[in-house]
Amino acid sequence: MERHAVFNGTIILEKDATVPVTVREVQSSFNVYEALRVLGGKVVHLSDHMKRLEESARVLHLPLPDVEWDKEIDKLIASDNISDATMRILVYGTAEPLWFITWSTLLSYPEEYYSNGVDAILYKGERFLPQCKTGNLLLNFLAREEASRHCAFEALLVDEKGRIREGTRSNFYLIKGNTLKTAPDEEVLGGVTRISVLRAAEALGYKIVLSSPEVDEIMDADASFISSTSMGAMSLRSVDGKSINVDIDRVGEICALVRKWELE
Amino acid sequence: MERHAVFNGTIILEKDATVPVTVREVQSSFNVYEALRVLGGKVVHLSDHMKRLEESARVLHLPLPDVEWDKEIDKLIASDNISDATMRILVYGTAEPLWFITWSTLLSYPEEYYSNGVDAILYKGERFLPQCKTGNLLLNFLAREEASRHCAFEALLVDEKGRIREGTRSNFYLIKGNTLKTAPDEEVLGGVTRISVLRAAEALGYKIVLSSPEVDEIMDADASFISSTSMGAMSLRSVDGKSINVDIDRVGEICALVRKWELE
Repeated sequence: MERHAVFNGTIILEKDATVPVTVREVQSSFNVYEALRVLGGKVVHLSDHMKRLEESARVLHLPLPDVEWDKEIDKLIASDNISDATMRILVYGTAEPLWFITWSTLLSYPEEYYSNGVDAILYKGERFLPQCKTGNLLLNFLAREEASRHCAFEALLVDEKGRIREGTRSNFYLIKGNTLKTAPDEEVLGGVTRISVLRAAEALGYKIVLSSPEVDEIMDADASFISSTSMGAMSLRSVDGKSINVDIDRVGEICALVRKWELE
Repeated sequence: MERHAVFNGTIILEKDATVPVTVREVQSSFNVYEALRVLGGKVVHLSDHMKRLEESARVLHLPLPDVEWDKEIDKLIASDNISDATMRILVYGTAEPLWFITWSTLLSYPEEYYSNGVDAILYKGERFLPQCKTGNLLLNFLAREEASRHCAFEALLVDEKGRIREGTRSNFYLIKGNTLKTAPDEEVLGGVTRISVLRAAEALGYKIVLSSPEVDEIMDADASFISSTSMGAMSLRSVDGKSINVDIDRVGEICALVRKWELE
């Protein structure tokens, strides 16, 4: 069956989900989006995602259309008989609204990524308006391409002061003793899964420190990991080719709680 | 007559010049472009623009398709019987090439913009990879929207050190005595018209200083102006609501030379 999408409230063929290259807002990446996880035909943490979409739009002065997103999502789930999927909401800030809901097979990762950890590189660069989820993603794209060229899974973005703020598509954390350290809200995209990770860490008795870790702190940490909607929590095992401390069990414990709450 | 465009070498209707929102390169603003000026059916400074397109692509590791751009442009000029226009070349860095040539009526400005000067605001922000012309333009878009809210024509982007690098769609210059000051090549988009402005200033006997002006220097300057392919050179008369020194004649002299060379 051919895949569908929602465009401005109408079910269309996915291949017709396009935007005109002649429109200034399209040319200027003036858009906001969310990537959702659908499990068993239900969207995980929908209200958190919608809050973030509204926040992204507010910061950009981007007019959001007045849409009942849950109904529109359900329309697409019914149309394509979706059980598990990665879903994307995308809104361009054009005078006449252009908004889409699209989907693809659920993004998931091999089990060994969790049981061994994954490799990361460092990449110098700060996102413009880090708290907004927009298509102005060139830095993230280039950093991720650079990671691929080094056969690494993720690139960690390092700011002017040599601190790690976040990954290209993940949040970043250090564990040292009973402390979990990660960038403060205002310096990063407020990941929906980040909320769960912090909640899980608290439930497990960690002390949370909201301060972007220095690059040097990685070597000294007991464990480093990244999180995202599609990853959950995933251990890092090397940075720029250097092995780092890994603690699969402690990161796995956090990941398990995060995933458990998704099903509630 | 309905307007056309070139898509991957084929003449199509402009309304069909679209890109799929499901492709990662589209979602991530992984593209390069050029805005060209067509006068009397001929593109102005085509080789300079193509050199810059190649440079943008090189920095991004974006594969440029092997296209005879002059022939493709001529195809569109013939198809739509174009005399004067603003033309746009746009290439997405997708695995399968997606490239476009589109056009619109020649962007030009009222005579009083030149005879009185225009208003600008200051906007804090540095472009990522300033030397590349890409669609990763959210900063420029937001800065220009902010300018519009203040009824200003342009926003000047101010870096962390309080220096003016460039406008959202222009380069920026100060004149003080016999000196013309502007940002060095590596800090800004190497404007095609900027090359002509510097050449004109030299021909008129100015000493060129390549160093991004401090914000404070504006009040002390004899004249400030901006340049772009569509503007030529245009005087500023105020910044953030404060009047500044204007010298219409000296800026006009530079603009006249720039425009004269376009027709050669």
